[in-house]
Amino acid sequence: MSWVSLETSQELYVRKIKDGTVIDHITSGFALDVLKILMINGKDGEAVTAAMNVASKRQTRKDIVKIQNRELKPAEVDKIALIAPNATINIIRDYAVVSKKTVELPTIIKGIIRCDNPSCISNTREPVDPKFRVDHREPVILRCSYCGHFIEREDVLKQF
Amino acid sequence: MSWVSLETSQELYVRKIKDGTVIDHITSGFALDVLKILMINGKDGEAVTAAMNVASKRQTRKDIVKIQNRELKPAEVDKIALIAPNATINIIRDYAVVSKKTVELPTIIKGIIRCDNPSCISNTREPVDPKFRVDHREPVILRCSYCGHFIEREDVLKQF
Repeated sequence: MSWVSLETSQELYVRKIKDGTVIDHITSGFALDVLKILMINGKDGEAVTAAMNVASKRQTRKDIVKIQNRELKPAEVDKIALIAPNATINIIRDYAVVSKKTVELPTIIKGIIRCDNPSCISNTREPVDPKFRVDHREPVILRCSYCGHFIEREDVLKQF
Repeated sequence: MSWVSLETSQELYVRKIKDGTVIDHITSGFALDVLKILMINGKDGEAVTAAMNVASKRQTRKDIVKIQNRELKPAEVDKIALIAPNATINIIRDYAVVSKKTVELPTIIKGIIRCDNPSCISNTREPVDPKFRVDHREPVILRCSYCGHFIEREDVLKQF
C-alpha cells in the first residue's frame, strides 16, 4: 500500500504507479524546470517524484520525473524538448508502460517561444508568429527567423 | 553503481547515499518549498530526490527529500520547521543513519522572519529585532510580538 518506504537502511523505494507518466533521461539538473513547465508544485495531492543528478548508462548523469495520474499534452512535450532534448516520455496505464517515446526537437520552432528582441517584427502589431531555427541542440540556442536574435536556454526557461 | 534504476516495470529505486541528509515526514506538498529554503535547484550536480504526496503511516500523505553530500545548518532547520513542523532530519554518514531528529517549532520565533506590516516598529530604524509568537502550528500562523500583525504560511514562504 505504501508508495514510498524509508527503511532504517535509508533506502528510498518508489513503487509502481498505476497510471501516469515517467519522464526519463532529462538533462541532469533540469527536473525542477520540467516540473515548472508542467506547472506542478506538489499542492494538488498527486504523487510526484523528481530525482536529480543520478547515475545513468546513456549519459553521465540524468534527472527523472515520475507523475501519477497525468499524461502530457503535445505542447508540454514540445517545451520539455527545448531544455531536455534526450528525454523519453513513458506513459503508464494500469501499471504497464504502454508507450515510450523520445521527445523531438524540430529544426524549426513555432508558437512556443517569443522573441525577446522588443523591436523584432514578431513583437509588433504585424500578424507574424514567432519562428526560430535551432542553432544548437543542447544547451539549446534558437535564432529568430525574422530578426536573427539568438535566444539561449536560460532565456527560454524565463518564458516557462 | 547506478543510483537510480528505471526498470521496464517502471519501478524507481533510489539507492543509499554515502553521506547526506534525508528529510522525512515533510507536510505533503511542501518538498519543493524545502528545496527552495535549502537553495537547491539541481544545478550543482549533487544527487537530490524529492518525493511528493506519498503514503505514510504517521500522516495520510507526506513528502520526502533526500540530499547527497549535504548536512543542514541550524538556521535551515528552523525555516523548515515553520512549514513542516513534523519533519524529521536524518543525517547519513558512511551509508548509516547517524542522527535522527524531529525539527522543533519553538513558541517564540526570532530572527527568521520579518514582520510584513510596514509600520511595525521592527521595520523602523529602532534597534528592535523581529519577534513572533506561534499562534497556530500547522499551517503555521505567527503573531508579531510588537504590532500584533498575523503572518500566515503563504506569507512566510514568500520570505524564503
